[in-house]
Amino acid sequence: MTDTQTNGSKTRPVPADFADNGFFGRDVLSVKQFDRKKLDHICQVADEMRSMVERFGSADLLQGKVLANLFYEPSTRTSSSFAAAMMRLGGKVISINEVRYSSVSKGESLPDTVRTLESYADVVVLRHPEVGAAAKAAHYARKPLINAGDGVGEHPTQALLDFYTIRRELGQVDGLNVAMVGDLKYGRTVHSLTRLLLNYDTSFTFVSPDILRMPAEIIEEVKAAGHSFRETDDVHSVIGEVDVLYVTRVQKERFEDLADYEAVKGCYVITPELMQKAKQKMIIMHPLPRVGEISYAVDDDPRAAYFRQVENGMYIRMALLAAVLGKA
Amino acid sequence: MTDTQTNGSKTRPVPADFADNGFFGRDVLSVKQFDRKKLDHICQVADEMRSMVERFGSADLLQGKVLANLFYEPSTRTSSSFAAAMMRLGGKVISINEVRYSSVSKGESLPDTVRTLESYADVVVLRHPEVGAAAKAAHYARKPLINAGDGVGEHPTQALLDFYTIRRELGQVDGLNVAMVGDLKYGRTVHSLTRLLLNYDTSFTFVSPDILRMPAEIIEEVKAAGHSFRETDDVHSVIGEVDVLYVTRVQKERFEDLADYEAVKGCYVITPELMQKAKQKMIIMHPLPRVGEISYAVDDDPRAAYFRQVENGMYIRMALLAAVLGKA
Amino acid sequence: MTDTQTNGSKTRPVPADFADNGFFGRDVLSVKQFDRKKLDHICQVADEMRSMVERFGSADLLQGKVLANLFYEPSTRTSSSFAAAMMRLGGKVISINEVRYSSVSKGESLPDTVRTLESYADVVVLRHPEVGAAAKAAHYARKPLINAGDGVGEHPTQALLDFYTIRRELGQVDGLNVAMVGDLKYGRTVHSLTRLLLNYDTSFTFVSPDILRMPAEIIEEVKAAGHSFRETDDVHSVIGEVDVLYVTRVQKERFEDLADYEAVKGCYVITPELMQKAKQKMIIMHPLPRVGEISYAVDDDPRAAYFRQVENGMYIRMALLAAVLGKA
Repeated sequence: MTDTQTNGSKTRPVPADFADNGFFGRDVLSVKQFDRKKLDHICQVADEMRSMVERFGSADLLQGKVLANLFYEPSTRTSSSFAAAMMRLGGKVISINEVRYSSVSKGESLPDTVRTLESYADVVVLRHPEVGAAAKAAHYARKPLINAGDGVGEHPTQALLDFYTIRRELGQVDGLNVAMVGDLKYGRTVHSLTRLLLNYDTSFTFVSPDILRMPAEIIEEVKAAGHSFRETDDVHSVIGEVDVLYVTRVQKERFEDLADYEAVKGCYVITPELMQKAKQKMIIMHPLPRVGEISYAVDDDPRAAYFRQVENGMYIRMALLAAVLGKA
Repeated sequence: MTDTQTNGSKTRPVPADFADNGFFGRDVLSVKQFDRKKLDHICQVADEMRSMVERFGSADLLQGKVLANLFYEPSTRTSSSFAAAMMRLGGKVISINEVRYSSVSKGESLPDTVRTLESYADVVVLRHPEVGAAAKAAHYARKPLINAGDGVGEHPTQALLDFYTIRRELGQVDGLNVAMVGDLKYGRTVHSLTRLLLNYDTSFTFVSPDILRMPAEIIEEVKAAGHSFRETDDVHSVIGEVDVLYVTRVQKERFEDLADYEAVKGCYVITPELMQKAKQKMIIMHPLPRVGEISYAVDDDPRAAYFRQVENGMYIRMALLAAVLGKA
Repeated sequence: MTDTQTNGSKTRPVPADFADNGFFGRDVLSVKQFDRKKLDHICQVADEMRSMVERFGSADLLQGKVLANLFYEPSTRTSSSFAAAMMRLGGKVISINEVRYSSVSKGESLPDTVRTLESYADVVVLRHPEVGAAAKAAHYARKPLINAGDGVGEHPTQALLDFYTIRRELGQVDGLNVAMVGDLKYGRTVHSLTRLLLNYDTSFTFVSPDILRMPAEIIEEVKAAGHSFRETDDVHSVIGEVDVLYVTRVQKERFEDLADYEAVKGCYVITPELMQKAKQKMIIMHPLPRVGEISYAVDDDPRAAYFRQVENGMYIRMALLAAVLGKA
């Protein structure tokens, strides 16, 4: 019924209906794996997933498959999103949320834990606090592994759902002016999204307090790719020009001098008044959770896309799960 | 395939097989939503669910639907009951039991958490320690929300399963003498059950230590509805007359003077000796967990209904889930 | 559709396709319940389960059935294994992993908790830190209960998967020389496995530091059953003769004098160098987690069976779940 081949990926039995989409049997570790063609493919599959969910609720595409949802640190949003994605594809989910209380606290290594859990499962989703954990685990795993965030390293599915949201909300990505606001120094999501957008003809507006500017490394990548960008600490001066306003949290803890924090914090809160200056066709995004950086009064603005962004996360994860299991 | 209408409830697509049962697309927040007609309907559906489970184990009524089971405080019994209910209807369950470790601890508001999780789900069950949390969350939620207990506020599904147990065990509710025993002052379950029973022709016997008497507010409601009732601190003097003995725990912590507690505690323990004075056709109920207030030696008495009561909780929750999703 | 009988087990409705396999409706509490015939049967069913999973991923044998997976202490490996087993049989799983935060912390007894959860479920898996907890819970439960470890008592499904691994890897069990290495005094798994193997014509090699020798009680059972055995503290001297090398961890905490620990610890680490002296056809097993007692460099040795052993655990648990529910 199945045949085994090594298609540049992990050695896996190939389903009868197999067509190499570039994902089958592979790990999803980094946004660097995604070019325009792959982004197109995944977004199209995500659209199909949305349409299926709206019409039927779930499908049986991954009937008989089991996901090990392995979270070394809590992340309700991401773990629930992957769980719902697997369930809506007809698959089953083993959730391991208490790793800190478990064998690991008896000293078991990450590779051993992953090799154990993949014995029960067909695909592994891993969240881990350490940079590089996903790549390390994937090296030992026989089954496809999806990185659900490894410390300040990568969180590729967040970047993909961000990208998918821009594309879906605004119809295209080329030609957009994408603003990122808040903590651009430590914000994993803005780094990854910027890198993904380098595949398209976008310009960037980086808005942050001086001490939280986009790292030089990312700025160099933007320059090297020939994209125009500007840096500013004033969201008011740029709000009228942007197509996407990607907001992140400015954390008090980042400031050595609290007076500096108090001086800037109000500048990065998105309010209805600020939104009056924005284009009619633009969107506000946020990776959530938010703690004050977008006023609740903005939620009813049709440009507020952050809860649609959450839902998009489920469709993107459905697309990825189906893809690595050879069903998309 | 579906059409959208606002049937006095949240705007939801209406299934082809839709018949307005008064629940579809609505939240379940309070026992005040239930009159005789609705109680009849839900109990009949619960009977059908029992019959289905006994014959087939599960159905596919909620195939393709996902429940977000969101518990801000632990309650194994209630969360397991809802999970089993959803699963036996063919639906899927995302369990979020660790809210305290999660985004919320990063300061996310309840409405944001609920709006996030409903993006993945079709219905939300919420347990929260604060009074009014369920109504607040439901206000923001687009999907139907069921209150699984909000502090000393409401716990409507417990009251419904209690009501259903009385009706099922004794065949009818009109004409019964229902005794409630123990801590009637702080007991959320006895308050809600009393309110539900005001829809029927029942008389009440409230048995408690003086400092734990039924609150004046409830007594006034009972009087206003024209029901007869008596209050006593002696279960022995009334055990022979009652059709239902609903037992709750008398907690040591409620007493300022431990001597007072020691003086009364034994009076509210149900023993085989006490049960010798009870009617042959009557039932003992308890919301569980019990800690000594019903002797284990009573468990084999056919009148001991508390474990059947637990099972009834699953059928009532199946009925409610099916109802709010337009399938009952 | 079904008929009720008491087949020496709990009184349960008998499915139409019922054939008494000696497991239906019964609890699985101890390895003492298993003789050669039952071991044969369970291993054959486990083989069928493996073949089914490899071909289809899952079956619908336990469609409509619900497992209550009740863990009073964390054990990711065991709970995930049971969950995956139930899911791959088409059943549903309610996971209760936080018992310590739950009703129990309000003082509920184990029998009450089990009777509550079985109201929602068709079978209960119980992990508990106290010896005898499983038998106690099973006494009160109406549904079949499977012991997933009760303190230093029993962990029969671990012993069965160990046995199944030996049988599957080496083709037969009679005639084998089985070595157990490490902490033989406190190791629950080596005690149970030894007892199971007394049903077969095996000889034993017990390798441990002097203070961690196999308990006299087990040695007496081995002698009484007429099996040959030897005891040694030197794995090097016996590695060339054994068919199975079952490795367990030597914990520092067991030693009063740390110098004693330092003196012996290296002697019980399995390395590629040691493996050069071993037979070509033999296997290394470990109940996992390991913390250094098998070098990672051994993992690629085809004789390293410990991750296959993990996977076998899922098939054995599938076989047991199907058996107690009358479907195997």
